[in-house]
Amino acid sequence: MYSTHVGTSSTDAITIYGHDLCNELIGKASLTDLIFLGAQNRLPQESESKMLNALMLGVAEHGFTPSSLAARLTWLGAPEATQAAVAAGLLGAGSVYLGAMELTTKMLADGFAAHPEASLEEIATAIADKYEETGERLPGFGHPVHRPVDPRTVRWYELAEQWGVLGQYGRLLTAVHAEVEKRRGKPITLNGAGTFGGLLGDLGFGWQTVRTIVTAARAVGLVGHIAEEASRGTRDSTAQQLYMHVQDNTDYQA
Amino acid sequence: MYSTHVGTSSTDAITIYGHDLCNELIGKASLTDLIFLGAQNRLPQESESKMLNALMLGVAEHGFTPSSLAARLTWLGAPEATQAAVAAGLLGAGSVYLGAMELTTKMLADGFAAHPEASLEEIATAIADKYEETGERLPGFGHPVHRPVDPRTVRWYELAEQWGVLGQYGRLLTAVHAEVEKRRGKPITLNGAGTFGGLLGDLGFGWQTVRTIVTAARAVGLVGHIAEEASRGTRDSTAQQLYMHVQDNTDYQA
Amino acid sequence: MYSTHVGTSSTDAITIYGHDLCNELIGKASLTDLIFLGAQNRLPQESESKMLNALMLGVAEHGFTPSSLAARLTWLGAPEATQAAVAAGLLGAGSVYLGAMELTTKMLADGFAAHPEASLEEIATAIADKYEETGERLPGFGHPVHRPVDPRTVRWYELAEQWGVLGQYGRLLTAVHAEVEKRRGKPITLNGAGTFGGLLGDLGFGWQTVRTIVTAARAVGLVGHIAEEASRGTRDSTAQQLYMHVQDNTDYQA
Amino acid sequence: MYSTHVGTSSTDAITIYGHDLCNELIGKASLTDLIFLGAQNRLPQESESKMLNALMLGVAEHGFTPSSLAARLTWLGAPEATQAAVAAGLLGAGSVYLGAMELTTKMLADGFAAHPEASLEEIATAIADKYEETGERLPGFGHPVHRPVDPRTVRWYELAEQWGVLGQYGRLLTAVHAEVEKRRGKPITLNGAGTFGGLLGDLGFGWQTVRTIVTAARAVGLVGHIAEEASRGTRDSTAQQLYMHVQDNTDYQA
Repeated sequence: MYSTHVGTSSTDAITIYGHDLCNELIGKASLTDLIFLGAQNRLPQESESKMLNALMLGVAEHGFTPSSLAARLTWLGAPEATQAAVAAGLLGAGSVYLGAMELTTKMLADGFAAHPEASLEEIATAIADKYEETGERLPGFGHPVHRPVDPRTVRWYELAEQWGVLGQYGRLLTAVHAEVEKRRGKPITLNGAGTFGGLLGDLGFGWQTVRTIVTAARAVGLVGHIAEEASRGTRDSTAQQLYMHVQDNTDYQA
Repeated sequence: MYSTHVGTSSTDAITIYGHDLCNELIGKASLTDLIFLGAQNRLPQESESKMLNALMLGVAEHGFTPSSLAARLTWLGAPEATQAAVAAGLLGAGSVYLGAMELTTKMLADGFAAHPEASLEEIATAIADKYEETGERLPGFGHPVHRPVDPRTVRWYELAEQWGVLGQYGRLLTAVHAEVEKRRGKPITLNGAGTFGGLLGDLGFGWQTVRTIVTAARAVGLVGHIAEEASRGTRDSTAQQLYMHVQDNTDYQA
Repeated sequence: MYSTHVGTSSTDAITIYGHDLCNELIGKASLTDLIFLGAQNRLPQESESKMLNALMLGVAEHGFTPSSLAARLTWLGAPEATQAAVAAGLLGAGSVYLGAMELTTKMLADGFAAHPEASLEEIATAIADKYEETGERLPGFGHPVHRPVDPRTVRWYELAEQWGVLGQYGRLLTAVHAEVEKRRGKPITLNGAGTFGGLLGDLGFGWQTVRTIVTAARAVGLVGHIAEEASRGTRDSTAQQLYMHVQDNTDYQA
Repeated sequence: MYSTHVGTSSTDAITIYGHDLCNELIGKASLTDLIFLGAQNRLPQESESKMLNALMLGVAEHGFTPSSLAARLTWLGAPEATQAAVAAGLLGAGSVYLGAMELTTKMLADGFAAHPEASLEEIATAIADKYEETGERLPGFGHPVHRPVDPRTVRWYELAEQWGVLGQYGRLLTAVHAEVEKRRGKPITLNGAGTFGGLLGDLGFGWQTVRTIVTAARAVGLVGHIAEEASRGTRDSTAQQLYMHVQDNTDYQA
């Protein structure tokens, strides 16, 4: 016997996480509320729903990235199987670009767990000490383009404050940021990836869920990339152009 | 030189489809509005935004399906790479379960294109004739469980009417439904897949985009499946249970 | 109760397609023989084994292609999950580049089925007539680079002849080639994709298996691409270079 | 300017890793030799070629596994895009089932690097000490079914010896095995995964390449699974049967 709280359906009803899909969710809840239901087994309050949506919207799209280029190149070979292009665009959602998100949530969660009685400043100091000792890189800081400020960080914190969903995770992250800048003696960007991880923590998500949430957001973003390629046709697609460019500019060295 | 309308970023701004991500989208638009922007290059009106969200929410989650089982089985082998589990869960989004969606949009679009001056009833008759001639199966009708009525169909039409976004696609689909029932002499379900395809048509999406939209919705739904597995751990996961069941119940025939 | 002829294992033995893996296969059979076992439920004769290997080797690697670039771009984001990079590189194995392979096998199989008593020349004529009527493109002919001769075609036919595995499929394909050139009045390349599909037919494979065989061959080829990227590191990888190139050469048009 | 040693093609030749595909590889090399070329930039000697083939053949197929079930479930939804089914079957090739392979190669490589002058027994002791200290699990030992002996281990060592390709990696692994059994005071299986990783080391492959090699072998194995499903049709497929079983045996708990 298997069990799940995800969903079931009968002749005249579909039930998802304990809610009647047609009467309680469709038309009332937002698509991203499903994630709240799935990971936390309750519908979000309106402020939580808006914040999760704001966070996911902010990471869904980044223009031409290795990920969206992989999706487009896949589409070029299999335009009849667009689900494969979407999937290909998600597969690179690994440690390099997205690792910082879940690592930030984890860093904060571990900090709270290790110092249950301490102030945020004390935990921040302990975190900075720990990373200094191990030599590991603190997740969530620095950005190749957005320096010294990542505009998403500012906006997300502003909204979290405004909507009353800024909590201990976001505040601890701010304290870590301050501690890091103090030690460095110069500004460093608290980046969007780190803020995403921190504020998801305030919404109650465990670090293990962070990567799947950003992966889902990216899937939404990829729709536009594939639509753009489809509107141009294979011959005039970015993928074809890119392939031709590589063909014409490759030095073959046995 | 490549070109895209998807997005770009500079030191202090991220621009997506012509909108400043932080100031014009985050906190104002919903995640699914990105799809509207991507496929139609404009933000949806509120009613369109709500309808797209309602449609995607209705197809995001179906409990234990071949797709969500594939995601869970993939997670079992690679719990550290959850993007791969999400991707695996999307790869089966092919002709069998989801084909009817895009085919319905296409059937309706082709009907309008072939009979630009005809009434909806005339187009419906022509469509039914055409499928009868070729022997091909009309997409969008019949359901193994939801008989004679798919509850999503009812709900979506109700909302589309209420929000003023029911248009020619949805109406033509109703006419085709009536025509099919007349010819069969008994009720047949206008299913959720067909209705999804029809109402996306009314929101202005071309049939080529339909599959990527449902694929993105599914990615959101898969977050909960992977979270459920993760909360149980590999040993007690549904995937492990399923694997054990197959191990114990397989007859090997060389 | 499930059943399979694929394989099973006990405490001291692993059985695959009726053969003891350790004593009858490892050290005796080649990796690609598994495909023969899987699709035809018997081990190939030596000539068949060599031919299948020669065919797969010939389609495993094509240098920088949309597929291998997608694999490399995926690796760039998730170098810790190389299975995802391999998978991404396979997902574009769709209609555009590989469709011709299975379509050629199918074209030939359909020809034999429709004209069981006819000579190869008569079937070839019937096939050419049929495609002319429907206006569909004959699969297996033409090549953007290898004109008028695809070197793989020549080599594969030579080996098939030499090893005694050239049969009715390969011969009918030659007859179709002759018929097409006669109608066009000028040479056209019988390409590697078509020949691959034809000669797989002579080895007894149904057209439905053709795509998975080439997909498996590609997986083998992708190992070298990922190894090359890994040997350079993310910073100096082709994927990173490609991404930078796109970043620097994109015109954003809202 | 990009550069690669993988391959290139001109009007009348295809060159792969410095070898003319048609004249030097097809008909002479085996498919798996490509992997040697790709990772080590030279063709293997005959003994190396045979050993790599024997290793890959031994890990290509394991009957019904989470991976092959994911491939079959994906095929059920998208039988027209079999490349997606193959890819889905590869995506679970992560830490749980395959991690031990690359970790074994790495453990041995790290052992040699840390103790360049030591005897195999001394290195084995140092390795066992190190894992005992950190409490981490030694990779390559133990098996749920094959106890106390994994038949593949025996066979592969036998062949490696016979073909003259047993080297320092394989011998160190044997020494580690002896050391571990001595410390435990009872037998433990040196499993196939560990042996695979060890003997690949003797063939000159770095640990970073190990996972892609087994992934490619699995792709070959999946051809048979998909062929079996296709031969039964969607309705009678294992995937459909499995899905029905889950449908009928799920307890939904909101």
